[in-house]
Amino acid sequence: MKQADLKMILKSVANGEISVDEAVTKFKTAPFEDLGFAKIDYHRGIRQGFAEVIYGEGKTPDQIVQIADNMLKNGQETVLITRMNSEAALLAKKSLPFTYHEIARVGIAGQMPVSDTDTSIVVATGGTSDMPVAEEASLTAEALGNKVIRIYDVGVSGIHRLLSHSEEIMNAKVIVAVAGMEGALASVIGGLADCPVIAVPTSVGYGASFGGVAALLSMLNSCASGVSVVNIDNGFGAGYLASIINHI
Amino acid sequence: MKQADLKMILKSVANGEISVDEAVTKFKTAPFEDLGFAKIDYHRGIRQGFAEVIYGEGKTPDQIVQIADNMLKNGQETVLITRMNSEAALLAKKSLPFTYHEIARVGIAGQMPVSDTDTSIVVATGGTSDMPVAEEASLTAEALGNKVIRIYDVGVSGIHRLLSHSEEIMNAKVIVAVAGMEGALASVIGGLADCPVIAVPTSVGYGASFGGVAALLSMLNSCASGVSVVNIDNGFGAGYLASIINHI
Amino acid sequence: MKQADLKMILKSVANGEISVDEAVTKFKTAPFEDLGFAKIDYHRGIRQGFAEVIYGEGKTPDQIVQIADNMLKNGQETVLITRMNSEAALLAKKSLPFTYHEIARVGIAGQMPVSDTDTSIVVATGGTSDMPVAEEASLTAEALGNKVIRIYDVGVSGIHRLLSHSEEIMNAKVIVAVAGMEGALASVIGGLADCPVIAVPTSVGYGASFGGVAALLSMLNSCASGVSVVNIDNGFGAGYLASIINHI
Amino acid sequence: MKQADLKMILKSVANGEISVDEAVTKFKTAPFEDLGFAKIDYHRGIRQGFAEVIYGEGKTPDQIVQIADNMLKNGQETVLITRMNSEAALLAKKSLPFTYHEIARVGIAGQMPVSDTDTSIVVATGGTSDMPVAEEASLTAEALGNKVIRIYDVGVSGIHRLLSHSEEIMNAKVIVAVAGMEGALASVIGGLADCPVIAVPTSVGYGASFGGVAALLSMLNSCASGVSVVNIDNGFGAGYLASIINHI
Amino acid sequence: MKQADLKMILKSVANGEISVDEAVTKFKTAPFEDLGFAKIDYHRGIRQGFAEVIYGEGKTPDQIVQIADNMLKNGQETVLITRMNSEAALLAKKSLPFTYHEIARVGIAGQMPVSDTDTSIVVATGGTSDMPVAEEASLTAEALGNKVIRIYDVGVSGIHRLLSHSEEIMNAKVIVAVAGMEGALASVIGGLADCPVIAVPTSVGYGASFGGVAALLSMLNSCASGVSVVNIDNGFGAGYLASIINHI
Amino acid sequence: MKQADLKMILKSVANGEISVDEAVTKFKTAPFEDLGFAKIDYHRGIRQGFAEVIYGEGKTPDQIVQIADNMLKNGQETVLITRMNSEAALLAKKSLPFTYHEIARVGIAGQMPVSDTDTSIVVATGGTSDMPVAEEASLTAEALGNKVIRIYDVGVSGIHRLLSHSEEIMNAKVIVAVAGMEGALASVIGGLADCPVIAVPTSVGYGASFGGVAALLSMLNSCASGVSVVNIDNGFGAGYLASIINHI
Amino acid sequence: MKQADLKMILKSVANGEISVDEAVTKFKTAPFEDLGFAKIDYHRGIRQGFAEVIYGEGKTPDQIVQIADNMLKNGQETVLITRMNSEAALLAKKSLPFTYHEIARVGIAGQMPVSDTDTSIVVATGGTSDMPVAEEASLTAEALGNKVIRIYDVGVSGIHRLLSHSEEIMNAKVIVAVAGMEGALASVIGGLADCPVIAVPTSVGYGASFGGVAALLSMLNSCASGVSVVNIDNGFGAGYLASIINHI
Amino acid sequence: MKQADLKMILKSVANGEISVDEAVTKFKTAPFEDLGFAKIDYHRGIRQGFAEVIYGEGKTPDQIVQIADNMLKNGQETVLITRMNSEAALLAKKSLPFTYHEIARVGIAGQMPVSDTDTSIVVATGGTSDMPVAEEASLTAEALGNKVIRIYDVGVSGIHRLLSHSEEIMNAKVIVAVAGMEGALASVIGGLADCPVIAVPTSVGYGASFGGVAALLSMLNSCASGVSVVNIDNGFGAGYLASIINHI
Repeated sequence: MKQADLKMILKSVANGEISVDEAVTKFKTAPFEDLGFAKIDYHRGIRQGFAEVIYGEGKTPDQIVQIADNMLKNGQETVLITRMNSEAALLAKKSLPFTYHEIARVGIAGQMPVSDTDTSIVVATGGTSDMPVAEEASLTAEALGNKVIRIYDVGVSGIHRLLSHSEEIMNAKVIVAVAGMEGALASVIGGLADCPVIAVPTSVGYGASFGGVAALLSMLNSCASGVSVVNIDNGFGAGYLASIINHI
Repeated sequence: MKQADLKMILKSVANGEISVDEAVTKFKTAPFEDLGFAKIDYHRGIRQGFAEVIYGEGKTPDQIVQIADNMLKNGQETVLITRMNSEAALLAKKSLPFTYHEIARVGIAGQMPVSDTDTSIVVATGGTSDMPVAEEASLTAEALGNKVIRIYDVGVSGIHRLLSHSEEIMNAKVIVAVAGMEGALASVIGGLADCPVIAVPTSVGYGASFGGVAALLSMLNSCASGVSVVNIDNGFGAGYLASIINHI
Repeated sequence: MKQADLKMILKSVANGEISVDEAVTKFKTAPFEDLGFAKIDYHRGIRQGFAEVIYGEGKTPDQIVQIADNMLKNGQETVLITRMNSEAALLAKKSLPFTYHEIARVGIAGQMPVSDTDTSIVVATGGTSDMPVAEEASLTAEALGNKVIRIYDVGVSGIHRLLSHSEEIMNAKVIVAVAGMEGALASVIGGLADCPVIAVPTSVGYGASFGGVAALLSMLNSCASGVSVVNIDNGFGAGYLASIINHI
Repeated sequence: MKQADLKMILKSVANGEISVDEAVTKFKTAPFEDLGFAKIDYHRGIRQGFAEVIYGEGKTPDQIVQIADNMLKNGQETVLITRMNSEAALLAKKSLPFTYHEIARVGIAGQMPVSDTDTSIVVATGGTSDMPVAEEASLTAEALGNKVIRIYDVGVSGIHRLLSHSEEIMNAKVIVAVAGMEGALASVIGGLADCPVIAVPTSVGYGASFGGVAALLSMLNSCASGVSVVNIDNGFGAGYLASIINHI
Repeated sequence: MKQADLKMILKSVANGEISVDEAVTKFKTAPFEDLGFAKIDYHRGIRQGFAEVIYGEGKTPDQIVQIADNMLKNGQETVLITRMNSEAALLAKKSLPFTYHEIARVGIAGQMPVSDTDTSIVVATGGTSDMPVAEEASLTAEALGNKVIRIYDVGVSGIHRLLSHSEEIMNAKVIVAVAGMEGALASVIGGLADCPVIAVPTSVGYGASFGGVAALLSMLNSCASGVSVVNIDNGFGAGYLASIINHI
Repeated sequence: MKQADLKMILKSVANGEISVDEAVTKFKTAPFEDLGFAKIDYHRGIRQGFAEVIYGEGKTPDQIVQIADNMLKNGQETVLITRMNSEAALLAKKSLPFTYHEIARVGIAGQMPVSDTDTSIVVATGGTSDMPVAEEASLTAEALGNKVIRIYDVGVSGIHRLLSHSEEIMNAKVIVAVAGMEGALASVIGGLADCPVIAVPTSVGYGASFGGVAALLSMLNSCASGVSVVNIDNGFGAGYLASIINHI
Repeated sequence: MKQADLKMILKSVANGEISVDEAVTKFKTAPFEDLGFAKIDYHRGIRQGFAEVIYGEGKTPDQIVQIADNMLKNGQETVLITRMNSEAALLAKKSLPFTYHEIARVGIAGQMPVSDTDTSIVVATGGTSDMPVAEEASLTAEALGNKVIRIYDVGVSGIHRLLSHSEEIMNAKVIVAVAGMEGALASVIGGLADCPVIAVPTSVGYGASFGGVAALLSMLNSCASGVSVVNIDNGFGAGYLASIINHI
Repeated sequence: MKQADLKMILKSVANGEISVDEAVTKFKTAPFEDLGFAKIDYHRGIRQGFAEVIYGEGKTPDQIVQIADNMLKNGQETVLITRMNSEAALLAKKSLPFTYHEIARVGIAGQMPVSDTDTSIVVATGGTSDMPVAEEASLTAEALGNKVIRIYDVGVSGIHRLLSHSEEIMNAKVIVAVAGMEGALASVIGGLADCPVIAVPTSVGYGASFGGVAALLSMLNSCASGVSVVNIDNGFGAGYLASIINHI
């Protein structure tokens, strides 16, 4: 039931075309979402101005390209495709304006938007192996109109590498801290920064890292305030949340 | 090495009282934190303008009251004391301007600040048993100068109670979603809201809730974007992070 | 917004007392649940005809007795109180028509209803230590108007005790199988019966029973069809679900 | 000992051919199952009227086709084959009246029965990735003579999609709620519906979903009454149990 | 149906008092266990000749003493009471011939039997803290008529203490190896001995011993052949199984 | 130090060729194992009379065949090879008297011994999928000179199939109970039998079976006495231990 | 068999009092440990020169005082008592030269030794709550003759506090890093130092710290080389190992 | 800021070219690491005199060879490459002085250094399957200039094999104990030796070994003093730490 429909019913009541009881019945059977006063599309935030998102996992190359093509034809300037394999990328390159970021398994159909904020998001990683997740976060943020400062391979076992970036960290509006193994990066950065820190544990490691559980627990137990955590390897979620905060 | 010391050395160099090499040696052996060019105190964000925080766990009533008393005497207007037991509260009431919130085990010495932002933080809970954690978050946020809208007992098994608060949810600047048991509140709220949602799993439940693990996992796996998670029962952390975001 | 309110608005529209647009605004701001076309109270199923339920955990004796008293005064004939401690029971006995089942920590204010179905629910346990959970299930079912056949202490390590009850098992409309330790009871009963079997793992056991996890996993992996599982020690949930099925 | 044998012994006793003591001895050594007074075949419920079931996992294509062929030749009208790979399906198509549902890995040899009940089973999923499990449940239920209403991709992070199906949910006789990730669907549906809800966690997700454990725990901790849970990815078990309940 | 009943029916058939079909019906409805051809009482092995067992956990002192008293009056010479607290022991001492072994929380009503085998059971422990569990095993075995050789505090971190008992270990008929912490005792003994080794993990330890899980896993992974494992702290089970093997 | 060496030293002392102190020194530096008074080879039990064992995992086909060939040439009549893949089996068939049991991945080089005991070992399984592990146990026991009675596919969800084998179960000297999923078989058999029951959890199952953990926990928590447990899928260990007990 | 016994036998052989074969028999039956050529007492390292250790857990105050008294009377100058409660301390103070360190639950009977090494052990903690474990480590090390530098409350969320101690860290011979919650301290220190770092996870924390598991996993996954880990809360073990390394 | 830069600033101050305040500002904004008074490169310990290390995992053969080549050209005599696959080894052999140790997946470019210490490191394993991890440790230690004594396949289930190496164990300066399955080797060795024991759990095993967790827990709970633990399969870390200790 759209607002238009609601008005229609009310007018019919006002006009005496339908009785009050008939109107009550109509309300009872109308689906909620059509009432118009709730958020119908939870992607609204993304769509307005910036990228649409396609989650590539479990979709065939054909499906991905077709969806992206439709979006572009409907006037969308940027389409962000996550968890996209190289086969799909190959197909996309043939028929779309398209760039593929292999390490992050991210594709961009159309063109990257220019950042619309003065502030920036810092994306930091503990090691080079955390880069796929970090790049998913960085590219997501960029596709959503943010300026991203990448500070990679600054793990806490070589603390001076991290400290040499103190200024960028202290000036960030929001930070994404990506780390596997012991995941301590989030705590150290959380202690240096005054802004929100989004911690992303990665499945990098072996043995007692248990596919990212060690880093996840470490981050949840961070003794630094201002730190919150997303799922293991969830670069997209971190980049998306960072964009929301950066656009506040 | 305070800035004063730094200046002293530099002046001695300028005056020729010590050689350049002697100055280099002095720098090498000075502790880092004293150089003054990095954030020495990670509580700075809290101290400026709003509450100081005392973590009551493991401190004796005497210690708590003494620390709070000193802070107030030094001009602090609000002192937030978390994880404070009733015995300590009793003592505090005798010697300090003091209010105790028993359910949250939170004490406020001095007076609550007036909110300095137009926007507000929504704190929502799944059930009434989640209130201790939610109140810790709410009071923390209030002590840090935020306006808090409490929406309690709106668990997802009675979805209409939650939906009747759609407007507050959609108008919030940041939301703290507190829930035990299956922890689904964060996902539903995350789907309704465009703002950051900080999910707090609670240890409420029994059996296969495993002291909050079920809610924690549920929240980490939220399919709604914009959701991040803090430690089980960490109401303070959520309220603190919410305050940072609300003050952006 | 109750249905009465909805009619009121519609009548005002019909009467021309308020405009269509004013009515639209009223709808937008009315909480969903009041619209009356959805299940407002998920306890409705219980309330119609049979017991109201009070979850005693975390409520003071005073609170429990007051709530129960109100319910009885409002015409409710049976009030089921779960997770009720003996202190609360003592108080209830003083001021209410009340029976306390200590082993199950269940209180019945008012009187137990007579069963309104021809069919019956079988509640079976592996051992005598599972009785508290089983009795919570049995009393819940009885308070909701069901006839319950108790078959206790028929654990699978003495299979003939269980088999001697084959007829009751095969004639049940629904069975609640309560067991701790290895939790195998559900599988054996599931193999004997054609009806739905609700398995309730209990926290009875020690060592590698891990507070009911062994029984829980065992029941989830049951190779018998028709078996589903509720939370550890969740006697109420099992009794409630059994009542729904028995009333179909 | 078949009933025929039992009669034979009793006749011999009646005829005086064997003594009472000899008969006692014969009884003692006869195997139980042959006595005929217990449920020998726990698949009986399925066989009478509707589909036979073949569990395809671990069987060769040849074995599957041969078993199904025999069943059809013995007059069975519907044979349901679960966990069947495409290779087996290819072979089955060559020699049997056969339909393959690739997404669910389910094959139907013979023809689907017409539903023999007025009521219907709702099968709902959180996302499109949960469809393989949901379809296994739906097809199982259909093969057992049920009418199934599919409500797919109504995850709780877009609550209005789910609410727009409120009527079907409230009219169902039994509901199967299939969800991975945070598994909150079961709780929300459990709150909307009065009928039994069978929750099926799926292994859909990554990171801290731990192959379906997050959804499993979430569902076991559901705060909605009337919800019970089956094993991760156990679409068949849910469909089978739903059929039992729908046929009550 | 007792054997007497069975005979009664058969005689009625022999006499022509009831028809064969009437007899068949009687059989169908008789409970299994009464047919007398299966092991009705799984404690039979214990009762014949040696101790009856009472599991004290969850029984009141009164109940325990009453049960034990009855057993003794019925001619039982030894009654073994496990998990018995000191309060119950005090009461037992007043009214029964009774000995209490506090460390094992085991009581013996009546008198310990003399061993009826030439062979012996070795019970070994890693540390002195494992003694409560070891003594439960030893006393159980003794109450069941076995000779027990105790080799306590021979943990593997002082391997020579264990090796100095090589002869007893190599001459045992069956060995119970009780150990907490790293639980390595079972493997070393398993390598020295040719007989069955029953490993009992104990909950002794702290931190990453996880209440006996470390020892349990260690024992399950023993690279020595001939080792099997019982539940954490299950001294009774180990002593009972050792007695079965020793009596072969 | 072999016994010969020991004698040599003692003779030298007797002869006065070396002093007492020189002898002491010689003892101090001699390796323990050579003293000859401890079990040097823990496979001794196997070797005397019956099969040698080769653990095939991680060995090349060449290595396996060569080792087996040597053993046979040294007079060994039976060589049992476990965890042997089909490639190794193919090679073995070319050059050795050899039989391969594919389902169990067990090879027998030489000939199976005739059983040397009157008693027998029962090996039972819950389902057909447990056969690989059960056959490893059965063939191991046979290769070690035992008579094995296989009772396969008698899972507890069809309890009468198991009960129809009550006599074999009650007459066994030792039983190996092999089951995955809920692993309840061990408890039911443990309740029926008086002899030792060795429970083998298998990794058969999916979802919350967690690769055999559900069955393992179930078996460890068995409420039947006389049951002990070996590692998941450890058919060899169970067969070996059963053989030790059967030969007592 | 003491060395004296060994000599006795050898002399008897030399004297011809017993034959070589008789001597062989004597050797075979003598317990290993008495042969004197292996480390009989694994506490030897401690005893020589420094403290004896008494593990107080599970010992009565009387037992502890008696053992300590004996040791002192036998010439021991320092007796270290760990996990000692205040009741035992009270008793000890009455009858022994004794100091009690309440926070560490450590008692020292006799007098602390003077350090016998030039080098020192650094013991660092993340927070003040880690002090009990850290002090157990520090006092253990001091009682074993080491100089200890305590650097407490230098958690990684305030990295400059830690860095201000860079010199002590870089000059240490061995470091004990004690931390709960996210346990990142070990990695940061491991990156700064060239010496061995012994990481001690503590059970400090709540929620997803799981009693020290988060810190444990974090430390095991440290990306800094030179770090190894002991059990949760094992301050004694860390102090002891640090002393071994410091004395190399 | 290099030391040169620091001097430059100080000289400018001395020369009066810049004011004291200008100098303060320069210090504030300079990155920490450049100040030169902290350990910039945490690999320093390795580089001086002995091997550089390349972690091969995740690097292409080309990358590995190029890095190694550069190092050798820069005068490095030994380059240790861990986690190197055979493809990379093949390429390395073509263009570098190179040796590949397949079982350990370790490559050595250049030449192995001669040991520069008198003392030696013992590397012991429980079984032959633990050799890959043990060899990674041994080769790491050798590449860092240590003499290594390998004692392989001395698992605790055949304790005399281990004891025959008592002398080497008691003479070692540091021991690396590598074991999977029940991981008891570390405790037994820890009891025999006075030196530090570094325990390395391996992922060798099946079933309840859970990829090395059983061994890990076992080692963490070792009742022998002087034992610490590194991550599962972390041969490199153990070899590296052993080298640090051996060079003290």
